[in-house]
Amino acid sequence: MQFSYSNPTNIFFGQGQIAAINTVIPADSKVLVVYGGGSIKKNGVYDQVAQALEGYQWQEFSGVEPNPTVETLNKAVEIVKAEGINYLLAVGGGSVIDGTKYIAAASLYDGDGWDIMTGDYKVTGALPIGAILTLPATGSESNKGAVVTKKATQHKSGFLSPFVQPKFAVLDPDSMKTLPERQQLNGLVDAWVHVCEQYITKPADGMVQDGFAEALLKNLKALGDDFANRDSDSWRANLMWSANQALNGLIGAGVPQDWATHMMGHELTALYNVDHARSLAIIQPSLLRNQIEFKRDKLEQMGKNVFGLQQSADLAERTIDAIEGFYHSLNVPTQLTEHGGDKAAAISEILEQLKSHGMTVLGENQSINVDEMNKILDNAVA
Amino acid sequence: MQFSYSNPTNIFFGQGQIAAINTVIPADSKVLVVYGGGSIKKNGVYDQVAQALEGYQWQEFSGVEPNPTVETLNKAVEIVKAEGINYLLAVGGGSVIDGTKYIAAASLYDGDGWDIMTGDYKVTGALPIGAILTLPATGSESNKGAVVTKKATQHKSGFLSPFVQPKFAVLDPDSMKTLPERQQLNGLVDAWVHVCEQYITKPADGMVQDGFAEALLKNLKALGDDFANRDSDSWRANLMWSANQALNGLIGAGVPQDWATHMMGHELTALYNVDHARSLAIIQPSLLRNQIEFKRDKLEQMGKNVFGLQQSADLAERTIDAIEGFYHSLNVPTQLTEHGGDKAAAISEILEQLKSHGMTVLGENQSINVDEMNKILDNAVA
Repeated sequence: MQFSYSNPTNIFFGQGQIAAINTVIPADSKVLVVYGGGSIKKNGVYDQVAQALEGYQWQEFSGVEPNPTVETLNKAVEIVKAEGINYLLAVGGGSVIDGTKYIAAASLYDGDGWDIMTGDYKVTGALPIGAILTLPATGSESNKGAVVTKKATQHKSGFLSPFVQPKFAVLDPDSMKTLPERQQLNGLVDAWVHVCEQYITKPADGMVQDGFAEALLKNLKALGDDFANRDSDSWRANLMWSANQALNGLIGAGVPQDWATHMMGHELTALYNVDHARSLAIIQPSLLRNQIEFKRDKLEQMGKNVFGLQQSADLAERTIDAIEGFYHSLNVPTQLTEHGGDKAAAISEILEQLKSHGMTVLGENQSINVDEMNKILDNAVA
Repeated sequence: MQFSYSNPTNIFFGQGQIAAINTVIPADSKVLVVYGGGSIKKNGVYDQVAQALEGYQWQEFSGVEPNPTVETLNKAVEIVKAEGINYLLAVGGGSVIDGTKYIAAASLYDGDGWDIMTGDYKVTGALPIGAILTLPATGSESNKGAVVTKKATQHKSGFLSPFVQPKFAVLDPDSMKTLPERQQLNGLVDAWVHVCEQYITKPADGMVQDGFAEALLKNLKALGDDFANRDSDSWRANLMWSANQALNGLIGAGVPQDWATHMMGHELTALYNVDHARSLAIIQPSLLRNQIEFKRDKLEQMGKNVFGLQQSADLAERTIDAIEGFYHSLNVPTQLTEHGGDKAAAISEILEQLKSHGMTVLGENQSINVDEMNKILDNAVA
């Protein structure tokens, strides 16, 4: 086991912590506040941000979509360049924070920002970012990854750079108070699959990584089972911190990672506008069944340590059933229905997109080729 | 739940990672390599460090004791000031790293370095530190705390400052290969008690903190039970990463902490030269029995989630027995015998030391006064 790891993001966790941002954003900063559709104006977060930024030079950029597009984000890049912005404050969920990471890197690059996503430009610097999280799910507030979409080609793609990791992140559970039920569910499922992608692979003897992953999965399962009590400080705080730890690099350090569910799910979002988390719930059970022989040991471990199942010859199968049952208990579907009804055409379209995006071999064992993707989709598409 | 947290230390984990230090120590640094009694010359670590530092201006300071003393460390401070050292490289276990933290802060202070420990000087800066860990136990390699001793007064005291947190830490399990059995055991017990001090308090609804703490306790229990197989890459790597996570601030963020066992144990070390970890094993079971009504809920939780015990009216009592049994299974004593045989005199002497160091009320509930300390010692001293 060998790895390098650090997580320099300053976390401010708890109620009222938005007020702390003026202790960490340099006083002479010219700040661009980046947000989405305006829900932060209804839940009081915008007002708290404005109050904390009193005395700063700041302006705002709104309208970052779920699954943010370069087409939108490039408009922010233009503003940053024209106005001499030197600090970005992302206020929202993973989409806003991911989008802000793109803006931070693209603003210091003279070429086409999409080069960041293709790897034609390797990020060598970025504007500093602060994040105020309003939807726990992606962990983007304290990691170095971002996923953005090119609308023109329906290509959803990711990049990693230490330069775009937020300097600080405010996790105030109160900012979740007005989240619609669907987004709470999506956040929970997204965090759950993030853990799975770093855990349901092959045994790597990482006792800390496995133990922490199992702790997070048990937390998320308990929060899902307790969904009726979601309007509580406790539920919100525990989801927020669990989702953060699910994808801040810690549980994945030094162990195999998969991410095939994400790569396939991205295409469902790009093609049929399926919510990101829901695209994962559609792909994952079918993918796990397809890859069960590679993942049997870890599935058995998960069955015992997360679901409390007893050993049996079909324990791995029962663990996958338990995962799928967990999604169903949350009324999250595990089959694609958003494609309009022609299953064969949908599968063909998804496979074409995967191929065109270079996704022809996936998984921690590189054992998911296009044939296997076809089989996975055959069970995942209604 | 409210907290601030970050952990900026760059971790380089794995075999061969010592070679990476020249990627993070600036080339123009004037480095002081700080180490202890010379074991690093026998196990090859010194040679690897020397090779990695080729091309740097560097010199060394050896002789940092277990439970490092300001009397020794101040000699290093003089060298730093005289030679214009601007980077400190600690190579050793917690004592060497803690001592180096003191050197780093005291070197930028004109007064008596002990002022750092008394709080008369609040640290406002420190030389940068890198750490090469050879004995996993204290977590000092990636936290901001240090404990040092004033030999003249037998006062063992701690300080916390973000300025002394190492910039990087190398955790190469191979560097543990020549550790004596006693130090392996001490490391395991020390890490175990670190988790307990942040976990066996009162319920605070921190699902992540509790889940991670339980994962670490289960790891350490498993590694203790598997002590016969300690001469393996797996055992070493898992102890090293578990002990690091046990005290890097993560599991204690936002939840109550105790540390009374440490405060009382420190006096056993100062007075009778008891190994730090062993001083904790002596105090803890007695302290837990004394404080059981305050800690019953978390002890029951630990009994179920760490030891796999069933609920019963005396579950908390059985959990303490299980903790003590774990120490005994490792041949780690839980009673003080190093005091020379006069129990009453020893207790009196320990209480005097505690009082003279201002330790008159301890514990997360401030419920351990001198009377309770007396009772705790009555069961802890043979």
